[in-house]
Amino acid sequence: MAERFDMVDVIRIKRDGGRLDDGRIDWVIDAYTRGVVGDEQMAALNMAIFLRGMDRAEIARWTRAMIDSGETMSFESLSRPTADKHSTGGVGDKITLPLAPLVAAYGVAVPQLSGRGLGHTGGTLDKLEAIPGWRAEVSNTRLMEILEDPGCVICAAGTGLAPADKKIYALRDITSTVDCIPLIASSIMSKKIAEGTGSLVLDVKVGSGAFMKDEDQARELARTMVDLGRDAGVDTVALLTDMSVPLGRKIGNALEVAESVEVLAGGGPADVVELTCALAREMLAAAGVEDPDVEAALADGRAMDRWREMIRAQGGDPDAPLPVARHTHEVRAERDGTVTRLDALALGVGSWRLGAGRARKGDPVQAGAGIEIHAGLGERVTAGQRLLTLHTDEPDRVDRALESVTPGIEVGDGPAPERRVILDRIA
Amino acid sequence: MAERFDMVDVIRIKRDGGRLDDGRIDWVIDAYTRGVVGDEQMAALNMAIFLRGMDRAEIARWTRAMIDSGETMSFESLSRPTADKHSTGGVGDKITLPLAPLVAAYGVAVPQLSGRGLGHTGGTLDKLEAIPGWRAEVSNTRLMEILEDPGCVICAAGTGLAPADKKIYALRDITSTVDCIPLIASSIMSKKIAEGTGSLVLDVKVGSGAFMKDEDQARELARTMVDLGRDAGVDTVALLTDMSVPLGRKIGNALEVAESVEVLAGGGPADVVELTCALAREMLAAAGVEDPDVEAALADGRAMDRWREMIRAQGGDPDAPLPVARHTHEVRAERDGTVTRLDALALGVGSWRLGAGRARKGDPVQAGAGIEIHAGLGERVTAGQRLLTLHTDEPDRVDRALESVTPGIEVGDGPAPERRVILDRIA
Repeated sequence: MAERFDMVDVIRIKRDGGRLDDGRIDWVIDAYTRGVVGDEQMAALNMAIFLRGMDRAEIARWTRAMIDSGETMSFESLSRPTADKHSTGGVGDKITLPLAPLVAAYGVAVPQLSGRGLGHTGGTLDKLEAIPGWRAEVSNTRLMEILEDPGCVICAAGTGLAPADKKIYALRDITSTVDCIPLIASSIMSKKIAEGTGSLVLDVKVGSGAFMKDEDQARELARTMVDLGRDAGVDTVALLTDMSVPLGRKIGNALEVAESVEVLAGGGPADVVELTCALAREMLAAAGVEDPDVEAALADGRAMDRWREMIRAQGGDPDAPLPVARHTHEVRAERDGTVTRLDALALGVGSWRLGAGRARKGDPVQAGAGIEIHAGLGERVTAGQRLLTLHTDEPDRVDRALESVTPGIEVGDGPAPERRVILDRIA
Repeated sequence: MAERFDMVDVIRIKRDGGRLDDGRIDWVIDAYTRGVVGDEQMAALNMAIFLRGMDRAEIARWTRAMIDSGETMSFESLSRPTADKHSTGGVGDKITLPLAPLVAAYGVAVPQLSGRGLGHTGGTLDKLEAIPGWRAEVSNTRLMEILEDPGCVICAAGTGLAPADKKIYALRDITSTVDCIPLIASSIMSKKIAEGTGSLVLDVKVGSGAFMKDEDQARELARTMVDLGRDAGVDTVALLTDMSVPLGRKIGNALEVAESVEVLAGGGPADVVELTCALAREMLAAAGVEDPDVEAALADGRAMDRWREMIRAQGGDPDAPLPVARHTHEVRAERDGTVTRLDALALGVGSWRLGAGRARKGDPVQAGAGIEIHAGLGERVTAGQRLLTLHTDEPDRVDRALESVTPGIEVGDGPAPERRVILDRIA
């Protein structure tokens, strides 16, 4: 059958700064999924998009075409509203773990279709797999059952959602076209819209440990995604949040599960609690729950009950001891002073090198590896006091980890830079 | 073996407007030739080069790396100097055919390693293959013999020259990265330098029938190639020549051979003679022949003698009748007036559609197909007078050809636009 368009012409239009009309975008995504458009042609188009951009209507159509490349899900048969959350990823970002049961405690269903980690940011599924017995794979039938009771699920996304996005993402990864707002926004939103949630809260991270290092760029990404959600009929809000410093005091798989359980038990680090509660309020508001006292739901064990049920529903034992790394290494203060620097990227890379993350898809990760932070940004310390504990099963990983970690933490005289957890709200 | 560089980083440098150093350029070309860098990565890099450019040193190194990807030839063992010519291609551009024997008549060796046509511009080898018995393939040993006597050869380029260029060119063709000056210049010059000529004259065409529609762009391409030649130690000069109007009165394979023979017999259209003589003077000057009376060498049969020997040396019969198309169609003037428009692209596409050119590599071409022009730009005609004759073996091709040809020729009242054959000289 003759093709409707010629890819050489489509690439030329974008290369020369023109806009792609709906017909061409639909055709490109479909023809690439079918293999009629080759990887080399899509790579050239992605680079042209990277350097020339896409307008709002183009991004919306590109997203829609990626959704239409595969299956879509629907939660309309559920007896309750659904609310979804997506984070662009950061160091120590375990928020999904306490957040999903907290929101579910209010009768709102939370489907969290998640991924595994690559590079210095951990993956939510990698973290939960530290829990003995817990399995990430859930059938669609079982998914709907769990969303009725206990009402929240964190599981692997099915392979049938937005297959065009999967193919394009793999291509972008090897052709230096990853950090491009139209392509990032359409990739995230095509998966989220295909999942069929009623509302979506985005946690767009800014800072050294995030994808977006620059606040203006992060705001543009957030704005683009909020627009895409709204255009697709999904009630979407974004919070712009700090990722210059790791979230919480623990980085790594089992370590982050442990810290999440602290939060669900009414404790935990202030920044993790603040962000969990802020996101919960956004999700609940979108689902029609007014003025929920989410702090109380953490303090009185309602959220913890849901957590325990959620872990059991996927075969996990919430009471089993978490894996512990075989080896630890302490980093201590060399002088008295204040912690004036605690860099998210440096510690994220360090945790990754200790074995908590993977360099290539399919590599195993260590459940116990990671970093504990004993002194947060702005805290006073004395010489010899513990600043960090590094955890790993393989002691020979420590030196490489320290190369990244050591310049990432500083003890000095001056006051530490001010840190706000939530920088902005975009709706 | 570990690779010296990571292609993702190399692409990012150019994407962000940086320059590629010598080591990275050498590695990219070598790794792509070896297949370590994939087509999708090279396509992304080509698009980044298209949109970000390369500086003079980058283009020179890119060219050198393509030369080093394969074999090089040398004519140093010849008893005479060599002079080479390259045209960027145009409609009715048969100049190589009379030019090579004309220059050889002065004892300068002319190796013309040529290609076949694709699209609306014909290929030199396609034209010569209209001569009964003539073969384009010549071994390297035989090539050197012919360059001693009769002293000129027009043959197929060996496949071992600049293989990286062949691979990159095929990729550019399907990814809309063809018309990019650094990539065009490096592609042409890598082949020409690998061929090992002592001097090179470039015929850079400007106008509707050429690659470069715009004079400033053509001048930049010419300047870039002259610089590349000089940097590589090849004495290089470029003429900027008109391609808004077809060259001569005949377009097509056998038709252009016939017109070339007219020029070699001391006749032929003024523009073809002017350009042939101008290029011959440049080539001869570069080879150290001072003030040659090239018009005389055409008039007195010296060039014709070389032509006949050159054709015979490759199995051709210079006295055999040329193929004639089975069908003709006349285009006549609808009114009295002056030919005010004679568009190279329109007539080139028309000739191609009549069967003189190919749409895909490897397609056959018709030896007899093409267009004869009876009334040139600025000539007075009367209603009913023949303007053009279309030739083809397949009469059902005429309608499609006329769709392109008809708007390309106009008879009106006003004077025709002035036409200069040679627009500039760049050295």
